[in-house]
Amino acid sequence: MKFSPNNSAQNPLFQKVPRRGKLRDTHITLAHGSGGKAMRDLIDDIFISNFDNSILSQLEDQASFNLASFTQHGDRLAFTTDSYVVDPLFFPGGDIGELAIYGTINDLAVSGAKPLYLSCSVILEEGLSVETLRRVATSMKIAAQKTGIQIVTGDTKVVQRGAVDKLFINTAGIGVIPAKVAISAHNIQPGDAIIINGELGNHGAAILIARGELALDTDIESDCQPLHDLVETILNVCPGVHAMRDATRGGLATVLNEFAVSSNVGIRLDEKSIPVREEVKGVCEILGLDPLYLANEGKLVVVVKGDNADTVLSAMKSHPAGKDACIIGEVISSPPGIVLLNTIFGAERIVDMLVGDQLPRIC
Amino acid sequence: MKFSPNNSAQNPLFQKVPRRGKLRDTHITLAHGSGGKAMRDLIDDIFISNFDNSILSQLEDQASFNLASFTQHGDRLAFTTDSYVVDPLFFPGGDIGELAIYGTINDLAVSGAKPLYLSCSVILEEGLSVETLRRVATSMKIAAQKTGIQIVTGDTKVVQRGAVDKLFINTAGIGVIPAKVAISAHNIQPGDAIIINGELGNHGAAILIARGELALDTDIESDCQPLHDLVETILNVCPGVHAMRDATRGGLATVLNEFAVSSNVGIRLDEKSIPVREEVKGVCEILGLDPLYLANEGKLVVVVKGDNADTVLSAMKSHPAGKDACIIGEVISSPPGIVLLNTIFGAERIVDMLVGDQLPRIC
Repeated sequence: MKFSPNNSAQNPLFQKVPRRGKLRDTHITLAHGSGGKAMRDLIDDIFISNFDNSILSQLEDQASFNLASFTQHGDRLAFTTDSYVVDPLFFPGGDIGELAIYGTINDLAVSGAKPLYLSCSVILEEGLSVETLRRVATSMKIAAQKTGIQIVTGDTKVVQRGAVDKLFINTAGIGVIPAKVAISAHNIQPGDAIIINGELGNHGAAILIARGELALDTDIESDCQPLHDLVETILNVCPGVHAMRDATRGGLATVLNEFAVSSNVGIRLDEKSIPVREEVKGVCEILGLDPLYLANEGKLVVVVKGDNADTVLSAMKSHPAGKDACIIGEVISSPPGIVLLNTIFGAERIVDMLVGDQLPRIC
Repeated sequence: MKFSPNNSAQNPLFQKVPRRGKLRDTHITLAHGSGGKAMRDLIDDIFISNFDNSILSQLEDQASFNLASFTQHGDRLAFTTDSYVVDPLFFPGGDIGELAIYGTINDLAVSGAKPLYLSCSVILEEGLSVETLRRVATSMKIAAQKTGIQIVTGDTKVVQRGAVDKLFINTAGIGVIPAKVAISAHNIQPGDAIIINGELGNHGAAILIARGELALDTDIESDCQPLHDLVETILNVCPGVHAMRDATRGGLATVLNEFAVSSNVGIRLDEKSIPVREEVKGVCEILGLDPLYLANEGKLVVVVKGDNADTVLSAMKSHPAGKDACIIGEVISSPPGIVLLNTIFGAERIVDMLVGDQLPRIC
């Protein structure tokens, strides 16, 4: 039987699909990744409702913005991406959702960019509890609100049980770099000072302890935090910062080795100036790890002209994310590409690139 | 013993870390995700060398571009992301690498945007063969070259065996939308024509057969292809395209349901006009699948004013990616939010949103 559109409008079968889905399931199934109704409900209920903004809720396959809206912030666009596979999903001081927001914000911020928009792509394991996903999405929502960024586009995939461990998140981010700011690992000069905004290794140690493989009872928390506001504070007093990077995987040692190689300079660190909590030192001693290589998620390494060091340091100390800032070393002309450490015992050793792996799935 | 920088420069221990790493391993280890030397070698040898461009090879934590360089292409920035988890990694007509480039290009293109830059974030399983990864990266390189986009920023994570199935890729993309183009799922009007650029379901069927669960011998290949050039051809003759989307997961049926709901219109399809290969119909019959829901990776659904349909159709047919284009339906005012199909038997049925999952890990 053929029915006319007019009749069909009165037929209950022709009820319009509701715009806002409500998720009734307690666990993720493959249908939630199908592109169909179940996926739409998941996206509506978990992501659209939490990340609430007018760009995302258009549900187009891409977000779009007037280019003119960017030029008020600067003259260059910054673009970055990171996947987050941290294990466990929740740990003292943070969780994978917060990490996925702050980590990508920080990768934008270290170019001097104002972070504006993030994408969010999740890969879910069949059987994941919806409650876990909701908790992570809520955490992302709060992190986005705190930092003033918007999550404007996304993607959801579900894979069969065993094909992914619970939940991985990718965020990509775009931001705008203010005119005249030119931060690069290639800009470093002998005579520059190396500044860090606080204690090293808290994130790595917190994850290690959260895995429960060590029977340690400590109050170490991840330092997971956004750095864009601290960066803005620094640029306000010193727009000519030479280099800046957040010391995540591979720790301070990796960042400084990259700096030394990129700018073909040497770096000399002073071990007694490098802030490390006693508990973190303890964990490192037990496991034979080196705090210089431990991951951080809220630590900024700043390289400025020696003459600007005190100004930058005092600006950093005035900011909550930089209150424990200190100068930890200097840039030297030779040996190029090498990081040296003056140890607390008065000796000197090379701090090489990390060889092997200290700790997998740290971020 | 302390040695002076001058002496140290002659000490072989102080050799500068080579800028370009060479990967000697045959399989991925956790060290390749550590942030240290092994990861650097992997990135240099697999990604930097293949994706060769001056932005990526800076190895900063973010890519940056002059905003002024975007304005030559249009007035709005488009931003999108997708994760790719297709199984198997290689299938007739494509592979995960090509898919990760073309899929994200297509999500930009359907807004009318010129795709410019992509990010690439990989999650690797410990034990993955380096040869497999190299093959995928080479495929991405070729896809990028063919389409003129650049992969400008990336991330590499390695997780322990069993925590991910071989290799997942996320790409995010940015492009620029030309002035006056305003394509949106919300723009559709009664009287509009629905056009498709060719056969439906080839990708879904090719993946299904590649999994080897069916003892079928066919030559069905994925339709995996970039659509940005076809979109440009269409916009040249009809800048006022109402809506456009690539019919991937969930197939044509899902796209049209999204269109019908977003614009609060009805859509009437004519089954006999919808191009589906006989072999694909055969696969669908055996498995109880519907080609309207099968995934595609190079199929463009275009909605234009009825008066423009012939012009757009003939422009599409002039392009290699649109040579089999045809009009498959029309937009009606009622029933709103509903997709109807006039079947080959002369009956009418509702084509609903996909409920459940036809085929996991299709893209």
